Amino acid sequence: MKKEVYLDNSATTRPYDEVIDYMSHINRNEYGNPSSLHKKGIEAERHVKKARELIADSLGVAAKEIYFTSGGTESNNLAIRGYLEANPRKGKHILTTAIEHPSVLEVFKYLAEKGYRPDYIGVDSNGVIDLDMLRSKITPETALISVIMVNNEVGSIQPVEKVVKIKNSINKSCVVHVDAVQAYGKIKIFPKKLGIDLLSISSHKIHGPKGTGALYVGSGVRIKPILFGGGQESLLRSGTENTAGICGFGLASEMVFKNLEENYHKVRLLKNRFLEGLKETGIACRVLSGERASPYIINVSFEGVKAEVLLHHLEERNIFVSTGSACSSRKNLHSHVLKAMGLKACDMEGAVRFSLSELNDHEDIIIALEALKDIIPRIQMKRP
Amino acid sequence: MKKEVYLDNSATTRPYDEVIDYMSHINRNEYGNPSSLHKKGIEAERHVKKARELIADSLGVAAKEIYFTSGGTESNNLAIRGYLEANPRKGKHILTTAIEHPSVLEVFKYLAEKGYRPDYIGVDSNGVIDLDMLRSKITPETALISVIMVNNEVGSIQPVEKVVKIKNSINKSCVVHVDAVQAYGKIKIFPKKLGIDLLSISSHKIHGPKGTGALYVGSGVRIKPILFGGGQESLLRSGTENTAGICGFGLASEMVFKNLEENYHKVRLLKNRFLEGLKETGIACRVLSGERASPYIINVSFEGVKAEVLLHHLEERNIFVSTGSACSSRKNLHSHVLKAMGLKACDMEGAVRFSLSELNDHEDIIIALEALKDIIPRIQMKRP
Repeated sequence: MKKEVYLDNSATTRPYDEVIDYMSHINRNEYGNPSSLHKKGIEAERHVKKARELIADSLGVAAKEIYFTSGGTESNNLAIRGYLEANPRKGKHILTTAIEHPSVLEVFKYLAEKGYRPDYIGVDSNGVIDLDMLRSKITPETALISVIMVNNEVGSIQPVEKVVKIKNSINKSCVVHVDAVQAYGKIKIFPKKLGIDLLSISSHKIHGPKGTGALYVGSGVRIKPILFGGGQESLLRSGTENTAGICGFGLASEMVFKNLEENYHKVRLLKNRFLEGLKETGIACRVLSGERASPYIINVSFEGVKAEVLLHHLEERNIFVSTGSACSSRKNLHSHVLKAMGLKACDMEGAVRFSLSELNDHEDIIIALEALKDIIPRIQMKRP
Repeated sequence: MKKEVYLDNSATTRPYDEVIDYMSHINRNEYGNPSSLHKKGIEAERHVKKARELIADSLGVAAKEIYFTSGGTESNNLAIRGYLEANPRKGKHILTTAIEHPSVLEVFKYLAEKGYRPDYIGVDSNGVIDLDMLRSKITPETALISVIMVNNEVGSIQPVEKVVKIKNSINKSCVVHVDAVQAYGKIKIFPKKLGIDLLSISSHKIHGPKGTGALYVGSGVRIKPILFGGGQESLLRSGTENTAGICGFGLASEMVFKNLEENYHKVRLLKNRFLEGLKETGIACRVLSGERASPYIINVSFEGVKAEVLLHHLEERNIFVSTGSACSSRKNLHSHVLKAMGLKACDMEGAVRFSLSELNDHEDIIIALEALKDIIPRIQMKRP
């Protein structure tokens, strides 16, 4: 069987073996309910506490500022809706970017029905937000700004520090939420230093299990729950803690942060090799990810190629990529991100995302390049 | 080391070894994102589909009527809030019982703030709801009735079929939601036969992993999501599917249903042995669980004993029980369930819940009885 070349790490990653084993251990031995008063519960709680500390350490924040959720989507929902629910007098104007993940965009749509006035900041051709537009849109009525730190389709990195500075110069009481799902575990993020009030992260993008995520809520930021019940997670997120998932998340975080720079360096070399190789093949294509984008995400549009056709040809060779983001891949629509970057329909149709992790190696890149060289000429439609 | 005697199965259960191994397999090999278009995603989706079918089969419903959530709490939240949000014209009156789990009671409290009129049905001394009171409270304005099928603290079984009949005789358009978290996997439940519209179940109460649950939504019942994003679970529950968790849940369901009668019979014998043994010890106590309660939950109040003191003496011997439910155990309040049953403070203070599973055996019961015989006289306060 051919080697599996998994280049869809922005959709989800393979959990580390150590994470899988630790989760089995927790499920087998530390299966108590963390809310139970006996030592079986206390022991489970101790493991959750350790995971909370690991996540907190990775962000340079206090453990009590970390709340576990069922994943990035819930974190984004909780951050935005929880904050607005708790602060109804902060104004009805809410700002975000045109290139957010659906779990932010759909929340904004929902809030529009509830009397809020959502507003969107455009991006340049590299997928980086227009800071002048941001400046012009913030008003004393703006309650919250939500910004994706690294875009999930093209990898563009947003100038979060500048966003906070501009915001502070106009409306200090407005809070900033950052969707850091694609950034976390790849670059260092210090919410306190950056002036971020709320920050969402996810486990399964950093080789942890699916079904777990966290929200950082800066002390002093008031927020209400969106799920009600037993009052777990300091009353902010009810429901029996997903102990094994949380522990797996904590360990994945510890492991990924231990090698953060090394991983980043490795992935950057892989990206460079891929782009150079692509050039050498002479394939007609356009790299949609900007030069300063995260090396973990490379979006390339192949001329005269239907992305989905290419995807299936690649999967036949055990090479896995995606068209747009996994979350919207089934909807068969043009990507809202590429649209916001001003791309033409023909460029969007040929756009494929190669997303890397440090588990990829040089050989993966060579195999992918060889495959592209072989497949593209056969599926390319010639311009009339 | 002493044998671990885990009698807190209503708080959470030990996952089956097969479930743990299957989850490891999924995490290690089938880690694709079910939303991805390539075979790595499709393969993951196939596993989720299989789990959905197993859960659907266990309830005698269609697979497309099962929606996966992060657990029982989210299922209860989604059922009640999702239904009301989708059906704003059905009336503002909502009914439940006085003995619900916090994930229903707290939702009702929240809805009171949002303009709904919550109403509560009382119970008798066995913890069974008063059907006359139910009849008197249903009006044409009643949008939803939520009933816990098996109470989590005393095990009382609610006459759900009669609830539906009474409801239908007064208001056919009102829907019935059943919190079946403690009932599922212990007794057969056929929502369609019973006339139930919405039904919540949880994985970690049936030897599956924590962090996964499901909601049955009868076809024809309109419901809106409470988490917004990528539109997974047929648009009803966004967020990358917790593949391994869902698969573990599916397998646990398959395993538990394969031996349903056998398990029930075994647990009933264990309960009988426990109650007989308790009588033989001559310990002054009162069994709070009614005679017709679920055999899986035995609530006993020990005269002159502080439940928490007894709990800690038992845990020293590796015997794990609970005071009230795990979810409210940390709040140090009198149980709302026992209060609703009309118990006096002194009876509530001595109430300990022994909750069984088919993984318990005869020896567990003997060890627990021996411990009680030894501990109770030493911690019992004599009446003045």
